[in-house]
Amino acid sequence: MSRFVPKSRDFEARVRDSFARQGAMALIGARLERVEPGAVDIAVDFRPEVSQQHGFFHGGIVGTIADSAGGYAAFSLMPDDATVLTVEYKINLIAPADGERLIARGRVIKPGRTLTVAHVDVYVHRDGHDHNCATMLQTLMTMAGRADAPKQR
Amino acid sequence: MSRFVPKSRDFEARVRDSFARQGAMALIGARLERVEPGAVDIAVDFRPEVSQQHGFFHGGIVGTIADSAGGYAAFSLMPDDATVLTVEYKINLIAPADGERLIARGRVIKPGRTLTVAHVDVYVHRDGHDHNCATMLQTLMTMAGRADAPKQR
Amino acid sequence: MSRFVPKSRDFEARVRDSFARQGAMALIGARLERVEPGAVDIAVDFRPEVSQQHGFFHGGIVGTIADSAGGYAAFSLMPDDATVLTVEYKINLIAPADGERLIARGRVIKPGRTLTVAHVDVYVHRDGHDHNCATMLQTLMTMAGRADAPKQR
Amino acid sequence: MSRFVPKSRDFEARVRDSFARQGAMALIGARLERVEPGAVDIAVDFRPEVSQQHGFFHGGIVGTIADSAGGYAAFSLMPDDATVLTVEYKINLIAPADGERLIARGRVIKPGRTLTVAHVDVYVHRDGHDHNCATMLQTLMTMAGRADAPKQR
Repeated sequence: MSRFVPKSRDFEARVRDSFARQGAMALIGARLERVEPGAVDIAVDFRPEVSQQHGFFHGGIVGTIADSAGGYAAFSLMPDDATVLTVEYKINLIAPADGERLIARGRVIKPGRTLTVAHVDVYVHRDGHDHNCATMLQTLMTMAGRADAPKQR
Repeated sequence: MSRFVPKSRDFEARVRDSFARQGAMALIGARLERVEPGAVDIAVDFRPEVSQQHGFFHGGIVGTIADSAGGYAAFSLMPDDATVLTVEYKINLIAPADGERLIARGRVIKPGRTLTVAHVDVYVHRDGHDHNCATMLQTLMTMAGRADAPKQR
Repeated sequence: MSRFVPKSRDFEARVRDSFARQGAMALIGARLERVEPGAVDIAVDFRPEVSQQHGFFHGGIVGTIADSAGGYAAFSLMPDDATVLTVEYKINLIAPADGERLIARGRVIKPGRTLTVAHVDVYVHRDGHDHNCATMLQTLMTMAGRADAPKQR
Repeated sequence: MSRFVPKSRDFEARVRDSFARQGAMALIGARLERVEPGAVDIAVDFRPEVSQQHGFFHGGIVGTIADSAGGYAAFSLMPDDATVLTVEYKINLIAPADGERLIARGRVIKPGRTLTVAHVDVYVHRDGHDHNCATMLQTLMTMAGRADAPKQR
C-alpha cells in the first residue's frame, strides 16, 4: 500500500513501544491505530476532559495528536538506532472540532537522512461522517545513534 | 506596563472564566498566571502524565499551553460580546523541554478588528533558570457577537 | 473538474486582470497558466536573474509564485466586489529548485466567507520530469467591498 | 553588540560575496545593509516592478528579502566550509507594505550545529517612520563541507 520501504524490520513494534511510553498520550486517551511505513493514524474519543470552552475538542488536543501522528509516520521510516524529534510544525484549524471522535492521519511527504517532512490531516467524526477540521505541515529530525528510550537521571 | 488598552473593563475576569471552562487545561494541570492586556502566561508542572517517550514534556503539551497563552492574550483585547478562535499557528521546538515547570508567555504583536497576531515563547525551568524551549507565531480571529460560552446541544 | 462553484461569472478574467497588474510577476517573468475555480497554476522559466548563489531558483522566487498561485486560487472563488489578501503562509523547501522551469499549483482546501485556506505544491521541471521542490500551507482573507484595483494616491 | 561569536573570521566577506552571487537579489534591487554575527538587514526601494495589484510592495518581495535576511543571519555564524539552506519559514503579513522602502531585519534566535532558528521582522518606511509589516519564523540548515559556490554543470 505504502510507497515507502522501512529501514527497520521492526518499524511497527518500534512505533507502538514508543507510543506506549508517552504519558501524554495516555492522559488524553489517544489510541494508536494504523501503523504503516510513512503512515500513522492516532485517534481520541470526546470527553469533557479534552474540551475547550465551547465544548469542542481543544485545539491543543488536535495539535497534540497531529504532531504525534506526523512524528510517528516519520519515525516508522527511520533506522533501528535512531529516534525522532519534532523540529517545527504549522497547523491550520479549518473547522470546529465538534464531534465524537478525532482522528489524525500523518503521512510522510518527503523522507530524508536528516530531515523528514510530513503532512497531517485531522478529521472529526460527527453524524456518521469524517469532517476535515485541521491540516498540518511538519518538519521532523532523525536523531541517529540515539535510542528511543527514556533519559537516564 | 502593557501598551494595549483593553476594550472590556472585565478583560481579566473574562479570561479567567473562559480558562476555567476548558477541560483540557485542567486535565494537563495548566495554571493561568499573568493576565494583562495583550499578555497572558500559562504554566504547567512536570509529572509523568505530560511526558513524551524520553521523559521530557511532550511537544503537544508545549503546543497546547502556547496556543492557549497566545489565544488568551488576543482575547484579553477583545470586546465583551466576542470570543476568540485560533486560525493557525506555527511552533519551533528549539530545545528539549527538560525541566520541572513549563511557562508559555503569550504576547499580542498586532491586534486587529478581525485578526490578531501573537507571539509566544515557552520556557522550561531547570536548575534555577528558565530556558527558551519553543517559539510560536499565531493568528487568532475575533468572533464578534458570539459569547464565549459552551455550545447549546 | 473543480469541486468549487465560483461566485463570480468573470472569475477567470478577474484573476488574469489582477495578475497583469502585478509588476513583480512581470519582473520575475512569471506566467499565469491554469485558472479554474479554486485552482491556479503559475510558472516561471529559469534564467540567471531568478537564481540564488548555487545557480538554482532562488527560494524567494519559489515562495513568490507559490504565494501568488494560492492567493489567486482563493481569489477565483471570491465575489465580484472583493479582493484577496495573504494573511500568512508557511513553506517547506523540500528539494533544490534545480531545473529549467518552476510551476506552482495553488489549490483551495477550505473556502470561507472571511478566511480561505490553500495548499500549494511547487514543482521544478528537470530531465523531462516534474519534481516536487516545495509545499506551502496558506491563509487568505476576503476583503469585501474593496475592488481589486490600484490604490489612489 | 551581538551576543554571538562567529565561527569564521571572514563572516562578513562571506555573506557579502554570497549575496552578490544571487541574481534574484539584483533583479529586485535588494541591498545588503547591516552584517553582524547573527544579524543581517536587507533593504529594497519601491518601484513599480516590485508591486502587487494595489501598488504596494508585493508579498513575494517581502518574503524574499525576509528569507534572505534570516538565511544570511544564520550563515554569518557558520564555519568556513559550510553553506546555508532554508528548510522552511512561516510569514505573517501584518500590515500593507505601503511605503518607499522595505527593510528586513534577520536575527538568529537559536544557532545550532545542524539547524538554526531565525526571526525576521520586515518594516516599510512611510512618512518618516518604519512600520512593522511582516514577521517571519524560519528554520535554516548548515550544509557542512559544501562551499557556498555555484553548482558545477
